[in-house]
This record gives sequence, structure tokens and C-alpha cells, in this order.
Amino acid sequence: MTAPLDAILAAVDGDRLWRRLEALARFGATPGGGVTRLALSAEEIAARRFLIDLARARGLAAFSDAAGNLFLRLEGARPDRPCVLTGSHVDSQPRGGRFDGAFGVMAGLEVLEAFLDAGATPPVAIEVVAWMNEEASRFAPGMMGSKAFVGEWDLPAMRSVADGAGVTVGEALDALDAAEPDVPKRPLRRPVACFVEAHIEQGPLLERCATPVGVVTGIQGTRRYRVTVSGAAGHAGTVPPGDRRDAMMAAARMIARIDAAAARVDGMMATCGMLRLELGAPSVIPAEAFFSIDIRHPQDAAVEEMDRAIEQAAAAAAGPCEIRIDRIARAPTLEFPEAMRRRIAEAAARAGEPATDIFSAAGHDARHLNAWCPTGMIFIPCRDGISHAETEWCDPADVLSGARVLAATLASAAWDPPGGSAP
Amino acid sequence: MTAPLDAILAAVDGDRLWRRLEALARFGATPGGGVTRLALSAEEIAARRFLIDLARARGLAAFSDAAGNLFLRLEGARPDRPCVLTGSHVDSQPRGGRFDGAFGVMAGLEVLEAFLDAGATPPVAIEVVAWMNEEASRFAPGMMGSKAFVGEWDLPAMRSVADGAGVTVGEALDALDAAEPDVPKRPLRRPVACFVEAHIEQGPLLERCATPVGVVTGIQGTRRYRVTVSGAAGHAGTVPPGDRRDAMMAAARMIARIDAAAARVDGMMATCGMLRLELGAPSVIPAEAFFSIDIRHPQDAAVEEMDRAIEQAAAAAAGPCEIRIDRIARAPTLEFPEAMRRRIAEAAARAGEPATDIFSAAGHDARHLNAWCPTGMIFIPCRDGISHAETEWCDPADVLSGARVLAATLASAAWDPPGGSAP
Repeated sequence: MTAPLDAILAAVDGDRLWRRLEALARFGATPGGGVTRLALSAEEIAARRFLIDLARARGLAAFSDAAGNLFLRLEGARPDRPCVLTGSHVDSQPRGGRFDGAFGVMAGLEVLEAFLDAGATPPVAIEVVAWMNEEASRFAPGMMGSKAFVGEWDLPAMRSVADGAGVTVGEALDALDAAEPDVPKRPLRRPVACFVEAHIEQGPLLERCATPVGVVTGIQGTRRYRVTVSGAAGHAGTVPPGDRRDAMMAAARMIARIDAAAARVDGMMATCGMLRLELGAPSVIPAEAFFSIDIRHPQDAAVEEMDRAIEQAAAAAAGPCEIRIDRIARAPTLEFPEAMRRRIAEAAARAGEPATDIFSAAGHDARHLNAWCPTGMIFIPCRDGISHAETEWCDPADVLSGARVLAATLASAAWDPPGGSAP
Repeated sequence: MTAPLDAILAAVDGDRLWRRLEALARFGATPGGGVTRLALSAEEIAARRFLIDLARARGLAAFSDAAGNLFLRLEGARPDRPCVLTGSHVDSQPRGGRFDGAFGVMAGLEVLEAFLDAGATPPVAIEVVAWMNEEASRFAPGMMGSKAFVGEWDLPAMRSVADGAGVTVGEALDALDAAEPDVPKRPLRRPVACFVEAHIEQGPLLERCATPVGVVTGIQGTRRYRVTVSGAAGHAGTVPPGDRRDAMMAAARMIARIDAAAARVDGMMATCGMLRLELGAPSVIPAEAFFSIDIRHPQDAAVEEMDRAIEQAAAAAAGPCEIRIDRIARAPTLEFPEAMRRRIAEAAARAGEPATDIFSAAGHDARHLNAWCPTGMIFIPCRDGISHAETEWCDPADVLSGARVLAATLASAAWDPPGGSAP
């Protein structure tokens, strides 16, 4: 038996998908056209309710798990078999974009609706997931839901992580449960036939080569740090230069050294996106500086070399201050299985959408699913390569192209499933 | 007629003054033993009420002016003559110390009470002032009350300054008036015979030479800046190195260059006590960094040279970002009049308190009063030179020594007034 692919592709409705993306963007909308929809916030919980209602209106089942992942399920002919899984996330950066994560979830839902509209019952179930806390902007590190789903992170440890206001993941998950008493729970670590995540590229390459679809070959390695510089508070005008233990000056020296070290390595990306000063008054020497460092490079060796450069920067910059470096996340460069990449490329050809191989500079939940089941990713272009910003934008034609390739890929996987989940 | 100085000195009560300092420290007290009593905050308004009540209980008059300065007046034999003025401020840095400013105000009040206890009616009135917003930690720049009093700053311009929450000085002053309907107003720019400010040193020198009293020779020059670095937001992992406009990296390069430039000049103090990132998420390239720079050095030429170094640091560090430098305050190095310094030194000798000349590394309201009337300052030591921090501390014996020298100085000024106010 083969998939009724022409009927499915004919039923993928670009206008419907675009309207749904616009509707989702109203949850946490910012004046600048973006969204602030932090993980497990009231805005995200409202967005999840919107998804649940949409799904149920079409007869799809909605359920979640102990890590706050939300699943929308189109039942298959063999409910006992491992499902084909797609999706992404609906949390965002503060004043982030309206497509990051949202595209993958809404494109997945559009595909389920296209199956329904085409009267196509897949041999195995297809589920759309919205993973909990991909972005790490409220609770760090991110990709919590996918890590918990595959068993990479113990639930109790994850629940103990607190946000800047002292609210823990556990408390936020309990609040989520209270808001979704009608959504049944299924276990973590369920068998899955394969996972396909559709996402915006978040870089400029597809746009530059005017290609609507990217077949993602792998994900760039990253390391994430939190650095605490401890000095001593004092009056800006009276503590003699030799007596100062200025945490901000040590931090500036260290960050400038990291910047210089990164500039010496082709393709190295070093970012300090968060810096807080203890107290923070213009005429007070800061007693403490706390900041993040994010390192990314396609080659693991370069990332590890940069790790040593950060140690050296701290040693050279500390002066009379103490510097503590916490490594909060580490992800080596990853390559998706050849079979999944080929399946996506063939789906693109079958759907008549031009596609090219592309490497992901950003991290995604697909990284963690790849350790659990055959995994692949589909990218679409975003304007000027901008993401994690309110000006993030996609062309509606590209959104449709991406959804069509996702539909063809999911049909291929449902009618001809790959090996399936590990254990 | 000469002052009944022995009776006055005998009436200066160190225990009473210490208890009053402890009582004042309860307004805005922090767990770490300091105070957070920002200008025109509820905590400061409550502290002012405490002062007004204390003064009235001893028959002293309390009044204010359009700039929110609070005055407590011991009437003299000739009420028509310009008063002798002393005092400091009761606002603090966030988690600042309990002596900075407070010592000068409470020592002034103690002297007025000693005059009363000794039955000494001075020939001219003596007033104790608490200047509005010395610290600049809520509204910047600081020393607003003294600048407005001497006409250095127009009231409407001053009232338009806003704090971080958008509340203007004008709104905060209106709220102050509403809280003090029983406190009459007197005009700004009143004639004053002379001004003497008692203060903690905020540096380590008096402690190191084990001398309880410093006769302040002058005040170190300062320049204060606000720097805005404008870049572009973006995803930390996907914007290629050549396309980045990372505001934090440019800020770190600039601050590190300022640090290096300061290190090349003996005695140069450069502080970045405040830095804020637009958005501030670990995996987002910051679109904007906003920070303060505070430059101080005893020699004006060195401060001006540093001003050029800051320009050069911005030019060298900007890269693809734009950097705007706002000079928000500039104060050249100042020398107090020889006659006032001699008067304080003689008062210290008369009170039997060891004293030494000392240069003020910190700015004070006395800087602005010096343009209006003969002005001088009295310092006392503070432990380890620490100020603008919760651990700021003074020895009760030094507090008493400072109050005794202030009493002798004010008596000298009241019985033998200097030339008096400018206009």
C-alpha cells in the first residue's frame, strides 16, 4: 500500500497555515511584531490551549507528559505501532520572532489536517509535539522537554531548576497541569518510529541561494557557560586604584579576550547575551558580575579549543577578582542519519520543491530525539537570516513549500516507517 | 562677645548622636547592615519625618524649598542675618552605608542640641540641611538639591529628569510636598554666611594615619558618562561572524580599553558601575548595551586626557556597532578657601582633636555651595576606607570627634561670621 500523496499534497493549505501562524503570534505579541512567550508562562499556556482546541475541533487527540510536552495525535490504522513524530516548540525568546518553533508546530498540524481533508488514514499514528522550554530564556539550559522525553535528563533534577524570580520548573509544571486538567498524560520515553522537525533556518544561507527548502545535514556543536566574577563593592571615587577589586572591569577584560580569541578562529561564534551587575549604580564599584557565554562552531575541535581560550581569558583578566566558570551545557556537532536525509530529499523532489543540503548553526530539540529514533530536519528561509528578534520574518510561499515537504516526508515515514525507537 | 565654647563642647553627646545614627539607619535598612534609601523614596520621606519630629521636639524650626532640601533651624540673636549652614544628605546608594551623608546631618543636629543644652544662643541662626538627591543612584546626575539651591541648575530642567521607572523628579517632589504639608517653604538662593559639611572620608587615609579628623583641602575632579552601543539583535548560533553587530562585544572591548588606559595613569579611577543589555538572553546577540563610566583624578589635566582616551576607546572598539557617548556631569578639581580650612583646623585644635589636611576623592554637595558662600568640609575615618557598601562603618569615638570639631567650627562661624553669600 502506498500513500495517497497527490491528494495529501493538494490538501496542504498555505492560507490556512499562514492564518494559524498569525493567530498563534497573538499569544505574547509584542509591539514590535514579535512575541514574548517564555516557557510555561501564561502566554505559552494560552497558546497551548489554542492548539488543543484546534486539534480537538478536527477530532485529533491531545495529551501531554510529565515534562510538559504537548502532543496532538492523528490516529493510524495500527494504534499499537510506534508513531511518526513531528513538531518543534511554541516558547520564544524575550521579544523573539513569531516563526521560530511556531512554524514547525503549525506546519505539523497543517499536515495532520491535510491528511484528514484528503481522507488519508496513515498506517501508523502521526503526532505533532510542542516540546517544553526549547529556548532556555526563562529556565536554563533549554530543550528540557526533549531531553526529558528521551531520558537524557532526570525529571527531579530538571524540576529543581529555577528562573530569575526563583520559580522552579517543577512549580511551573504543576501550574501547567492545573491549567490543563482535561489533557491526559502519557509516559516519557515512548517508542517513536522517527522524528522530523521543520524549522526556520535562522541564518541567511537558503535565502542567499533562493532555495525554499533545506535538508538539514547536522547541528553545530555548542558550549554554554555562566561566569561569576567576584570582587568588592566600593565608592567609585575613593578606593585607590591599587585597592580596587572591580568585578565589571575584570568581566570586560575577560569578555574582550574571548571576543579576540573568537576572531582568530574562522567561523567561531562567541556571544555574551546576558550580563548582570550586583547592585549596578554608576558611582559604585560592582562587587559581582554574572554573565553568559555561548560558543558555537561546526567543528568540535574548534569548540574545545575555545573552551581552553575561555579558561585562559579568565586567568589573564581576573586581576584581584575571583572568576568562576560554570559549564552549563555542552553539545558536540551532530550528523543526522543518511537515510532520514535521503527520505526528506526524496519527499522534496516528489513535492516538486527545490531543496539543498544545509548545516544547522542553531541547536534544536531534534538533537536530542536523534539519540532516540531516526531523526531529520527541514529548514525554510527567513528574511535576512534574522531570528531571535522581533523582525524575524518568512515568506508565505516558503512556509507552504516547507509544509508540503513535511507532508511528503511524514507520509513516506508513515507508510514506510524507519527502524524506530532505540530500546 | 565670644562663644561659650567649653559649655558647647561639653554638651556634645556622643551617645545621643550614635543612637540617632542607629535610629536613622532603620529607614531603608538592608539585611546586610546597610541602607537602601534612594532620593525621594518612601524610605527617605520617612527618614525626613524622623528628622522633622526630632527637631520640633527641641523647638527647632523645619522648612524646605522647591528643590526638596530640608532645613532644621536654630534661631540666632539676629534672625535677619544670613545663617551659618551645615549638613549633608540622607539619601543613599542601593545597599549603601549608614554613615555616608547621614553622619553630616545627624552631627549637625547634635551640634544644635548641644547649643540648646549649653543655653548658647548664637548671634546668627544655624541651620542643618539634608540636600535632595546627592547620590544620583535614582535620578542622575546627583547633587540636585545643592545645585538648585545655588542656582546652578534651573528647577524646570531638574524636575524633568526621570528615574529608571519613568518617574520624574518633578513628580517625586510633588509627592514629597504632599507628604510634608506641615513643612513651610523658603526660597532657593537664600543668603548664607558659610557652609560646613561633615562627612565620612570614604577612603582609607585617615584610618591609616590614625587621625580622627580631616580638614578637607579640596575635591577631586570627575567626569561622568553614559555610553550607548547600538548593534543588531540576532541568534547567537546562526548569524555568521562577519554579519554580527554585537553590542555587548563592542561594549566589552571599549570598557576593557578604558580600563587599560586608566591603568597607565597614576591615581586614575575609572568605574563602570552600571551596564544594561537590551533584551539580555544568553542565546541572543544583544542589540544594545547601555553603561556608565565614572572618571576621577585629583588633576584636571589627567581627567581631560582620560576624556580623550574614552573617545579613542569607542572608536577602536565600535567595529560594526555605533557608539554614542553622553557626558552627563563634569566637575573640575576644586580647592576650598584657605580661611575656611584654617577656621576648621583652629576649631579642631580648640576642641583638642588631632586633625590633618586631606583631599576629597569623592564629590560632595559642598562643591556646589563653594560657589555660593565660603565653604569647608570635615572628614572622619571609615573602616577600611569602605563606602557605598553595606559594610561601611565608623568608630563611635571618631563620630564624636567629628561632631566636636563641627561644633567648634559652627560656633566660630556664628560668633565671627565670614563674608557670606555671593549676591
